[in-house]
Formats: sequence, structure tokens, C-alpha cells
Amino acid sequence: MAKNYAAPLADMRFLLQTQTTRDIDDAMPLLDQAASFIEQEWATVKTLGDIRGCTFDQGQVTLPAEIKAAWIRYVDAGWMGITLPEPWGGQGLSATIGTFVGEMLSSANPALSMIPALTMSACKAIIAFGSESLKQTYLPKMVAGEWTGTMCMTEAHCGSDLGLIRTTATPLDEHRFTITGTKIFISAGEHDGSANIIHLVLARIKGAPEGVKGLSLFLVPKWLPDSGHATESGVANTVSCIGIEQKMGIHANPTCTMSFDAAQGFLVGRANEGIKAMFTMMNEMRLGTATQGVGLSECAFQESHAYATERMQGKALDPARRSANQADALISHADVRRMLLTQKAFAEGGRALCLHCATLLDRAQAGGDEGQAAEKVLGLLTPIAKAFLTETGLESASYAIQVRGGHGYIRDSGVEQIYRDGRISTLYEGTTGIQALDLLGRKVLGDQAQTLLTFTKQIHQLCASIAQPDPPIDHSSHPASGVVKSLAQALHPYAREWPQLAQQVGMRALQDHDEVGAAAYDFLMYSGYVCLAYFWLRMADAARADGLEVDPRFLSAKQKTATFYFDRLLPRAQFHKVAVQAGKAALSSFEDDQWSF
Amino acid sequence: MAKNYAAPLADMRFLLQTQTTRDIDDAMPLLDQAASFIEQEWATVKTLGDIRGCTFDQGQVTLPAEIKAAWIRYVDAGWMGITLPEPWGGQGLSATIGTFVGEMLSSANPALSMIPALTMSACKAIIAFGSESLKQTYLPKMVAGEWTGTMCMTEAHCGSDLGLIRTTATPLDEHRFTITGTKIFISAGEHDGSANIIHLVLARIKGAPEGVKGLSLFLVPKWLPDSGHATESGVANTVSCIGIEQKMGIHANPTCTMSFDAAQGFLVGRANEGIKAMFTMMNEMRLGTATQGVGLSECAFQESHAYATERMQGKALDPARRSANQADALISHADVRRMLLTQKAFAEGGRALCLHCATLLDRAQAGGDEGQAAEKVLGLLTPIAKAFLTETGLESASYAIQVRGGHGYIRDSGVEQIYRDGRISTLYEGTTGIQALDLLGRKVLGDQAQTLLTFTKQIHQLCASIAQPDPPIDHSSHPASGVVKSLAQALHPYAREWPQLAQQVGMRALQDHDEVGAAAYDFLMYSGYVCLAYFWLRMADAARADGLEVDPRFLSAKQKTATFYFDRLLPRAQFHKVAVQAGKAALSSFEDDQWSF
Repeated sequence: MAKNYAAPLADMRFLLQTQTTRDIDDAMPLLDQAASFIEQEWATVKTLGDIRGCTFDQGQVTLPAEIKAAWIRYVDAGWMGITLPEPWGGQGLSATIGTFVGEMLSSANPALSMIPALTMSACKAIIAFGSESLKQTYLPKMVAGEWTGTMCMTEAHCGSDLGLIRTTATPLDEHRFTITGTKIFISAGEHDGSANIIHLVLARIKGAPEGVKGLSLFLVPKWLPDSGHATESGVANTVSCIGIEQKMGIHANPTCTMSFDAAQGFLVGRANEGIKAMFTMMNEMRLGTATQGVGLSECAFQESHAYATERMQGKALDPARRSANQADALISHADVRRMLLTQKAFAEGGRALCLHCATLLDRAQAGGDEGQAAEKVLGLLTPIAKAFLTETGLESASYAIQVRGGHGYIRDSGVEQIYRDGRISTLYEGTTGIQALDLLGRKVLGDQAQTLLTFTKQIHQLCASIAQPDPPIDHSSHPASGVVKSLAQALHPYAREWPQLAQQVGMRALQDHDEVGAAAYDFLMYSGYVCLAYFWLRMADAARADGLEVDPRFLSAKQKTATFYFDRLLPRAQFHKVAVQAGKAALSSFEDDQWSF
Repeated sequence: MAKNYAAPLADMRFLLQTQTTRDIDDAMPLLDQAASFIEQEWATVKTLGDIRGCTFDQGQVTLPAEIKAAWIRYVDAGWMGITLPEPWGGQGLSATIGTFVGEMLSSANPALSMIPALTMSACKAIIAFGSESLKQTYLPKMVAGEWTGTMCMTEAHCGSDLGLIRTTATPLDEHRFTITGTKIFISAGEHDGSANIIHLVLARIKGAPEGVKGLSLFLVPKWLPDSGHATESGVANTVSCIGIEQKMGIHANPTCTMSFDAAQGFLVGRANEGIKAMFTMMNEMRLGTATQGVGLSECAFQESHAYATERMQGKALDPARRSANQADALISHADVRRMLLTQKAFAEGGRALCLHCATLLDRAQAGGDEGQAAEKVLGLLTPIAKAFLTETGLESASYAIQVRGGHGYIRDSGVEQIYRDGRISTLYEGTTGIQALDLLGRKVLGDQAQTLLTFTKQIHQLCASIAQPDPPIDHSSHPASGVVKSLAQALHPYAREWPQLAQQVGMRALQDHDEVGAAAYDFLMYSGYVCLAYFWLRMADAARADGLEVDPRFLSAKQKTATFYFDRLLPRAQFHKVAVQAGKAALSSFEDDQWSF
């Protein structure tokens, strides 16, 4: 049977203490409370949600009863609005708290966690671009969790390529339109856990330009406002769910095909600027998906560790771990420890990266010059976090199966569900390939690598500061000082190499823009490995600080995991570098009629 | 919807022609016939088998009706015994034919393919170790496919660690025993597609030594021989299926828990030498699983190629591929081509490796000195082929999902089934970790790397022969000659480095045997990448030969895929080398109480 999820509170506490300026006495009680709610109410129904799935009957979608109940308890306990603004009924807590709670939710129950994630992201888009009237009408109920939100972009013929969207909008007046079209893959587009469902829909106003520059964003509620207020007792809009998908995983979240049949919708932001407004929502969702990747690695690690500790199989090769028993625990085998450490290194390194993104988000929201600078770095890190942490999350999830051998393949083990649920994460909110193009094309080459240089400068500075001789009063006597210095030495060359690699591609791309596409995926993976090394170095460095009230075994484990990461995972960056440098030749040479015979 | 499987006959023909001494006029008609049978009868019911699954009711297991029908047609058409000896009703065809047919079967229908694979392997064990009476009684029906076979090893408390087996055998006379115990994970342990089911069971004769040296192999039929002949109208043995597993995939193959309640069994081979006999079966199954890995990559490639050609999404960055349409085909994007080429390179490279293993098997079966030498190399290559080709098969399968974006996550796409079905392949017949220990511990260090040196000598020789100046009449004018020479130059250093790497681990292992465990996985993956590079070089070299009656576009595609493999996949070997060289330190340092907090 699957192990019960336990939120990684010790690590969150360590990160808040050493990587942020937050007061942990203020933050930890809330995280403790969130953890116990999520462990008890959400993690416990994950398996049931997978087995029961959602049902569709004549336009009605029913969530698994246990999932609906867990959602209602979440709303009733007031968790929905924790990071949303106080004026709309939220608690206005920082993104640093939000990212940790988000990770717990998606680790404990990925299918259910999509409902609050989408609702929260929809709120952010309405806050940023909606009219005062839309805000007044929709935000209070959405922030309370009484109404849920969706993101309606994909159509049958267009997924990644939004420019092809055909859904049309016909104006009724300046703000009101009728929306007609069919959207697919709408998560929780229809379900019985919400009194109203608020769709944010990309559509093209008749006569608007082709491509993404002709798209506008509309708020289309399931129930229309009655005398100025949307209400479940209001008028039904002509929005309907015409089917749900059978899919590999996340069975407890209905993936709906939504039909908009001259449905009333309200313009959010300006006409033809829908992509900008949608990307407010999308960037939130991408960061949310990054934490889902961390949640995958964490959950996979916990399952693997529990099993590897209990399961006796084979005699340890290491004499120090060999017992008098017929067989030793799986964890005594080096190759099993390799898999556990890989999961652990991705989970904790990824958590530090997500936390950093959250602090940037908090700073960006504060505005000003510093806010703008933070937003740029956040823009750089978002595609890395989204793609790299979900790709590595899938590796961790696959290891959760592998550690169990054949038992991992059996439903009852619970771990094959981790993989099936997780497999969506590299696909939705922009595939890994889309993130890679966003990173290399837009975020790096698009600004002449200026933001990348800002970021690598931080890496330089950290490495240089660690290389300094230890002040007599500080770390010098700490046994880990030598380790941290050697890690800093190992990372330093990457801080130079990373922008150089971008420059090499940039030079080739001047001749042929397809070089960007050929290099993008490997450049992203290279960036991810280097990025995580930076956060591992930060953690290893922090773990030798004096005065931390943290279990010394925990601090020692941080150093050891950092060493593992540098020894065994960071070297993968070199392979991706070689692939980037190989250029497009080997990819582009095939003729159309040469692929299959 | 999923594409219909098309057997890769052009590649099989090319490989037979250039990599073996077989007469293709003799071989191809049979492969053509197999292909059309498998495409029409097996591939078409793969999805149905997944959806319907098997049912269990009071000890009876029912296959999905379509799967049972496909199996019966296979038997009726006489395919079961093609590589089994003529004296027992087989056709005595070579393993080179067998490996290709096996790949087609597992590509087209992995769940169903396990039934003939296990039956064939059971026959091989009976042929090698069974008494004349057992052969006479069981082989004719098994070779005909009227009776199917199983391999019963795993028990609830022991999977990889067979030494822990508790099933007991009590002698009735010299050859007959009563077998008591419960075995789990028995593929097709009970089903309605066979008149009798012949279990090969590992058990411990009372009083035998502990561990694997006390295990014996027994043939335990579902129906006992009646007056000297086993028959469905004979006596029911006390063997029963007490349940089937719910699992991630291969739903059309029942994974049974089998209870042996003082069941009558017949000793196969000598007492306490059961492991040796079982490994005859196991090695066959490992090679079969390697071809399953190739089948995964092939099937994933076909699905991805078909979709990427049809689906229009995004404008090509490459001006040469940009059409006047609103969007270009997915295949025009470099990153999609990267995924397709990865699948293609693993499928075709893996096929060449499996074919080589099959030629070694044929040579080994011929006996003599040459046979013994072939058997040694086969022993070295078996764990590489099994683990590397299934690991890369899973990567290919995951790309089949990724190429489709969100559509790949939907059941109807058919590709998520490829992944779910394929996921078992790195687990059963010995996990990747077990293969890695077998390779490094037993096959390489166990014989002082002598067999590895034999194999790398072949690589040296090929590279050296290609480096020779071209004879005036031969390849010199062939445009690909330069390419092949540069690939040979790239591979040559690996032929030196590979045994050196083994030696480095060997030296460390003298001090601490756990170093073998710490290095094993990465050593195996390193070996796999180098090994496939060797077969890609052989193919690229062969593709420039004169007088091949092969479509020149096909030969050019071979060169291009070889170049892609060397540019983009072989460099991964360097990362695995670094991981091997990192040693055990980072893996072994964690204390038991440091893993979670």
C-alpha cells in the first residue's frame, strides 16, 4: 500500500530561515496547519479519486464523492484565498507561503489541486485586467472558493499554436459579447463542486486580425449575473459541457469539452490584447506546475524511502550495512540509494528554485525598479522551473516504480498513479518544447542574454564569496567548509559557460533561426541542471551557518545531498551542452520521404 | 486514433542482408507473412485488450475475447513453434528469424506476446534439462501452442532475491514431488486460451541448503498426465489461481497469484540445480524483453511520425520548411525531429543489437569452440540488451506522448498505452539494477574483462578497417565515406575507454565490493550507448556498400540517423562515465536516520 504523504515541513522551515527574510515564527504555524489539513483531508483520498474518476451524464459532471467532499472542506476551512488580496476576501499572504502550500496540495492530490490552482490564477487575471464591475461581481465568490475558475484556450485543431483559435466573439455593447466556439481539454470545465464556474476564454472578435494579435480574453460564467450579481439562482448561460476525456491519470479532475453557443461573455482587458491577459494566468499556472514537479519528486521520494527501508531483499555488498538476516533492506543497496538520492536532490533543489521564484514574484508585485528587475529574472526562471522540474519530477516518479520492482507496476502500490498523474505536467501549460523555445528564443536571445547575465552574476558572486578564506570566527572550523568550497569551485565555470553557450547559439541563429529550435530543449535542460546546482550550493552554504536551530543530522544531509547532486546529476549538463553545440545539421537533414519505408 | 502498426520489414531486410550471412530470398517471405498476420490479427486488438482486460471469477481467468481469438489464430496458423526444434513439431528456424518475429509480436501486442514468449522459453528449458519422458509428454503440445507455459519464481516476500524462496517440494519418488507454496506475478498463470498450462516452478526440496543453491526446478501441469500422457481430460492437479492483479498496463495478460497445494510436480534437471535450469528460460526471456524494448521504440516512432506529419501546429523556424499555410506540420519543428530521431535511432540500433545477439545464440547452439566463444559474448550482451533497450524503449514511449502534447495523455490517442504497457519491461525478468549487477559484477569483473576485451577488439577492428584509405574500386567515391570515417574516429576512443572504466571500478572493488553496486547502473548505461554506437557504425558502413538492392533514400537515412546518434545520443555515455568514476562516496554517506525529517 502507498505510504501516507507527510509534508516536508523541516525542509520548508530551513528554506524560509536561510533563503528568505521571512520570520519563521510567523510562517511556520500556518504551514503546520496547512500540512495537517492536507495530509488528513487530501492525501487520504488520492487513490479513491483515481479509482472512481469523474462521470458525465447529459452535460452534468460528477466528481468522485470523496474528492468533492475534500474540496468543500478546503473551501470551508478558508484555504482558497490565502495568497489572494485582502480586499477581495483573501488573506494576502506572500507567494513564498503560497508556493509551499501549492506544493503540498499537488503532492497530496494532484488531480484536486488543479481546481484551486486554476481558480487562483483566474482571480489574478481578473485582478490585473478585469473591470471594477467584473471584480466586484466575481472575485469575492471566487476568492472564497464558492465559485471555481477555468482557462479556456485549446481547440481541437490548436494546442500550442493559439494563433489558430477560431472561437468568435460578437459585440453586444462595449463590454458584452456573445462567444461561440468549442474548447477542449478544459480542466474542471464542469463539475458539481462549485455553485458557478467562471471561464476565462480566448476568442477572436469578428474582424480582428489573424494570429495571436487578434485574440481577446472574455469572462464567461456558467450562471449569468442577475441584476448585477452573478448567482447560482441567476440565468443559465449557453455554456455546456459536451463530454469528458478518458485519460492516463488525474482521473479525479474532469477534462471537459466545452461548447459556447452564443454564450454571454465580458471582455477582460482590452480588445486584441487577450494573450497578454491570458499570460498573467498562464505564468501563474506555469509556476504552479513547477511546484507540481517538486511535489512529484517529493511524493516519489517518500514512497521510495518508505519501501526501501521496509523491504528486505538481497544481501548488502557494503560490509558496514550487512546484517545477520537472510536479506538486508533495499536501502542498503547502492543503486537503490542512487535512485532515492536522485529523487531527494530534485525535490529539495526544485523546492529552493520554486521558493526563489516566489520571492521574485513577491518583489515584482511590490513594483518599482527592483520589482521590474525581479520580474525579468522571474521571466527567465519560469520556463526553466516549469519544464525542468516536471521533467525531473517524472524521472523521480518513474524511480518510485523502479525501486519497487514488479510491485511498483501494481495499482495497489499507489506509485504507478504518481507517474500517471504526473505525466500531464510536461504537457499542459505549455509542453517542455514550448518552454524551451520561450527560454532560449524570448527570454535569453530576445534580450541579448542580459537577464541571464544578471542571474549568472549572482552565481559568480556566491562562488567568489565562498572561495574567500574563512573569517576566523565563522565557518572555518565547520567540517563542511571544505565540501562547500569544492562545490563552489565546481559550479564557477558553469556561470561563465552558460551565457557563452547562449551566445554560440545566438551567433548561429543569425544565419538560421531554426538553430534556436534545434538547441532549445538541450539548452533548457542544461540551464535546469546549472540552476539547481546554484540552489544546492546556496543550501549547502547555508547549512554550515552558525546559530541555525536545526537538527544537525538535517544539515549534514543537506551537504551530502548537495555533494551527490554535484557528483552525479550536474554532469548531465555537459551532455546537454554537447547536444546544443551539435547544432541543427543532424536534425534537419531528413527529407520528408526518408522517414519510413 | 492510434496508427496501425506496420512491421519494419525494410530495415529487417537490410539487416539480414548486411549483418548476417542469411539468404534473404529464403528469409523474407516468411517475415512478410509474419508481418501481415501480426499487423492484421494482433495489432488490431491491442487497444481492445487494454480496455477490456482479464476477468477473474472463482479461480477461472478469462482473456478478453478478441485477445483469445487472436491467440487461437496464431496457434492455428502454426506460428508458435517456428524457432523450436523440428523433432518436437517446430520448424527449427534460426534465432535471427525468431528475434524479428518476436519484435513484431511485442510491438503489435505486448500483452499477448508474453504468452508465446513464456511458452517458448519454457520449451527451451524442458529441452535442455527435462527427462525424455517429460519431453515426450509436454513438448509436442507446447510447441504446437495447444498448451502454454509459465515461469513461477516470485513469492510475496522475494522478487529479485530468489534465495528467499519458501515453496517446498516433498519427494514422492526420484522424479515426482509434491509442491506447496504460493507464487505471485505469474503471467498467464491461468487463462482460457489453453487446454493445459505447464508451470515451471522454483522450489526447495525439504532439507536442501538455504539460498539459491538449494533450489530445484519442477514442471507442474494444471492437468496431470493420464496413463502417461498429460491431457485436458486427465486429472486436475492441485494448482489454482487465487487472484489476478490490477496493474498499470498489459491488461490483456493476467498476472496471477498461483497456489500450489501439494501439487504434483516433476523434477527438471538435477536437484538443487534449479537456478541453472531456470536461467536457460530466463536468458531467453531477457533477450525477448530486449526485443520488446526495440518494439516499444519502433511502435512509438511510428505513432509519432504519423502524428507529426499530419498535425499542423506552429510556423516552421526553418525557412526551407515554411509553407504558405497558417501552420506547418509538427515534423517541421527541430525539437519534434529530435524526438522522432531519438526513437528511430533506438529502434534501429536496438534491432541491430538484438539481431547480433540472435546470431550469437544460433552460433552458441551449434556448439564447439566457436559456440562457447559466442555464448560468452552473448552472456555479456544479454544484460546490456535487456536493460538498455527497455530503458531507451521507455524514453521513446514517453516521447510518443510528448510529441502529441495534451492529446498524448488521452486514452483514445493510443500512445499512453504504449508507455503503460512498456513500463513493465524494465521491471520484469530482472530489473535494470539486477541487469547492471549481472553485467558489471559477473560478466565483466567476474572474468577479468576478458569477454569485454574480445568484444571491444571487434570495435577496434571495425574502426581500424574503416580508417584505411579506400581501395580505388570500393567506397571512395561514395559521398557517405567521409561521414563513416568520422563516425569511426569518434567511436574508436570508446573501445579503449570502456574496458579501462571497468578496470577502474575493479581496482576500487578490491577494497570495497560495494563500489560495484555504486557503479553498476551507470556502467550499464555507458555500455549500452557505446554498444549501440558500434552497431550504428556497422550499419552506416554497410549502407555505403555497392550492390545492395536497397532504396537509396533508405541508405541515406541510415547514414543520417547514425550521425544523429553520434551527435546527440552517444555523448550521454560521457555523463555515465563521470558518474561511474564518482564512486560510492556520495551514495554511501547517508546514515539511516538522515533520510527524512
